[in-house]
Amino acid sequence: MSGAVWAHVGQPFEERAFDTVILGAGRMGTAAADWLRRTRPEQSLLLVEEGGLPNEEGATLLAAGLWEAPAQATDLAQRTLDCLEELGERAGWQPGVPLLTLETVPGPQSFPTAEALERWPELRGVIDPALWPWVRAQEAGLYRPGALALALGQRAVQAGAGLMLNTRAALVPGGVQLSRLTVTNTHEVVVHEVHQVQAGQVIVALGASGPQHAEESLGLHTRHGRAYVQRPRLNAPLTEQSPALRVPGLLLRPQSGGYTLYPAPRAADPHGYVPVPGRLSGVPVGLRREVLETLLTHMEGLPALASSALEVGRSLSDVPGTWVALPSGQPGHPPVLERLSPSVSLLLGGEQADVLGVGVAQQL
Amino acid sequence: MSGAVWAHVGQPFEERAFDTVILGAGRMGTAAADWLRRTRPEQSLLLVEEGGLPNEEGATLLAAGLWEAPAQATDLAQRTLDCLEELGERAGWQPGVPLLTLETVPGPQSFPTAEALERWPELRGVIDPALWPWVRAQEAGLYRPGALALALGQRAVQAGAGLMLNTRAALVPGGVQLSRLTVTNTHEVVVHEVHQVQAGQVIVALGASGPQHAEESLGLHTRHGRAYVQRPRLNAPLTEQSPALRVPGLLLRPQSGGYTLYPAPRAADPHGYVPVPGRLSGVPVGLRREVLETLLTHMEGLPALASSALEVGRSLSDVPGTWVALPSGQPGHPPVLERLSPSVSLLLGGEQADVLGVGVAQQL
Repeated sequence: MSGAVWAHVGQPFEERAFDTVILGAGRMGTAAADWLRRTRPEQSLLLVEEGGLPNEEGATLLAAGLWEAPAQATDLAQRTLDCLEELGERAGWQPGVPLLTLETVPGPQSFPTAEALERWPELRGVIDPALWPWVRAQEAGLYRPGALALALGQRAVQAGAGLMLNTRAALVPGGVQLSRLTVTNTHEVVVHEVHQVQAGQVIVALGASGPQHAEESLGLHTRHGRAYVQRPRLNAPLTEQSPALRVPGLLLRPQSGGYTLYPAPRAADPHGYVPVPGRLSGVPVGLRREVLETLLTHMEGLPALASSALEVGRSLSDVPGTWVALPSGQPGHPPVLERLSPSVSLLLGGEQADVLGVGVAQQL
Repeated sequence: MSGAVWAHVGQPFEERAFDTVILGAGRMGTAAADWLRRTRPEQSLLLVEEGGLPNEEGATLLAAGLWEAPAQATDLAQRTLDCLEELGERAGWQPGVPLLTLETVPGPQSFPTAEALERWPELRGVIDPALWPWVRAQEAGLYRPGALALALGQRAVQAGAGLMLNTRAALVPGGVQLSRLTVTNTHEVVVHEVHQVQAGQVIVALGASGPQHAEESLGLHTRHGRAYVQRPRLNAPLTEQSPALRVPGLLLRPQSGGYTLYPAPRAADPHGYVPVPGRLSGVPVGLRREVLETLLTHMEGLPALASSALEVGRSLSDVPGTWVALPSGQPGHPPVLERLSPSVSLLLGGEQADVLGVGVAQQL
């Protein structure tokens, strides 16, 4: 039997206890909800999300959604792949996408960049084959993480999970406090009503804000960090068959006829950091300085980055950006599922959630 | 013949041209001034400093002043050592100080920690020998970087350098603009007078703010970064003969009967970061979170850190802290001397300035 959905405060919520409450309906939270409904259908479950499904401000919507066979944790990656293949089009799953890693020296699986430019002539303005003379091709898959979260959330609800949207949650002893939000005529977000809900276990899947949320509620300290990432757009004219590209610290994902850029964070941002726009030759731009530095590194090898095809914006709000969790405070660390107290667990996706996220959520 | 010193605005300054103007009288700037007077006495030189000598807000005063034989750049380290030995007491030079590196496994030069605790019984409450069973001892030297800067600055002036204190400098085409500062009756710092001074070359030795200063004036981009470091105090009762201690990411320097702690920055702070105090079990403390995390790592092996002997403060201003330059944006990178334009060079000390700083300044 399908679970209840509370999308707005007009739908009355009756206080009751749940075996599990999951905070956050990003791809980690929805994957956990989906998994718990399938493996423990006898237990009651409530999934709580501050925004909608998908949340427009979380990291899920701005994740690359690139699945590739990893060097490690292959069972977790396989579980993620199984899920993507099962959901297929509902997750925007697109297998068999070529991923070209640009290289300066030939390796066992590489071939000359010149050949790649013949096969994909649209890359001629993008890559300088003199600086990146070799490419290594592998098969990857692309999907839409926001679509994945929506599909997993819907499947969990169909299997009996309750879903409460537009609701802010706080950990309290024995459960959670739910503040249902509404918007006034003057576009102010206000708390409409507050509920106390008992929970046997709470899974904090709030992305980058999860660790701080748990720390403040439980009075403990975690090693996890976060980084503010930006996803600038490179308007290179691409076709439906254009490959994804990768250079150190930067992924170029084909999307809507151009590339969306995914510069990897180089370190966790310090506590208290507020994103600020950078400057390019003295002129303010929407990219933060740390992102600019990653792009500057590649402007010679990827000359399109040094052209007007790169959308640098004029202020921070011109470039899509979000906080991503850095499990253990380290860039590139795999997702973690961590028990913080007998009844509270933390689920953190982070940079490798594209490949390992669903698998880690299935460790519950 | 001794150079002129302009310490306050009551001392009139007559505009003239200089062969070299050095901005910043920290240990890098004073070492450069001293070196230029000795190697190019025929050239005129002006050393400009925004504060006093030593500047109470720069990184020089809060540097550890630990000299040890490095694995690389031994000629630069030797030059620094020569300078320290020559200045001796004027730089607070104290050779032959034992530096104990704590280890978990025995190495070629290590001995049991238990033996070290017999020799230095005051360390019994500081080190847990069960977690750090081995120590490697080496001979190091301690000095006071502020005293070094003062001695080098005085020597440069005695050799004919001009020294202008309480003066803010800006790069302008062909030279520098000098704004002499004074303090009003209401303790406001104001510009008293402005001078334009021509300079054959300008050396920017402004520490952590040097790269940004140069970038904004010259409209270029450097890879250098900075990090906000703090120097908390550990009130372990020490003797005059107590050794310095080192564990990964943390140096404990004996000073005034206790240890001053030098947690190493783990990454450059992002552009626009403003230091904020951290929290320990929910209570605000003066240490920033990143420093706390380094100390938390060592609280078991160094139990004194988990006691009230550690001064955590209640707000940021309770703990001495400063910005340090991170040459190339990387922690642990050696100091750099870099030509930014035909007439402007950047001199950056950073974390390894204790060992290599004077040597790098002597590459001018």
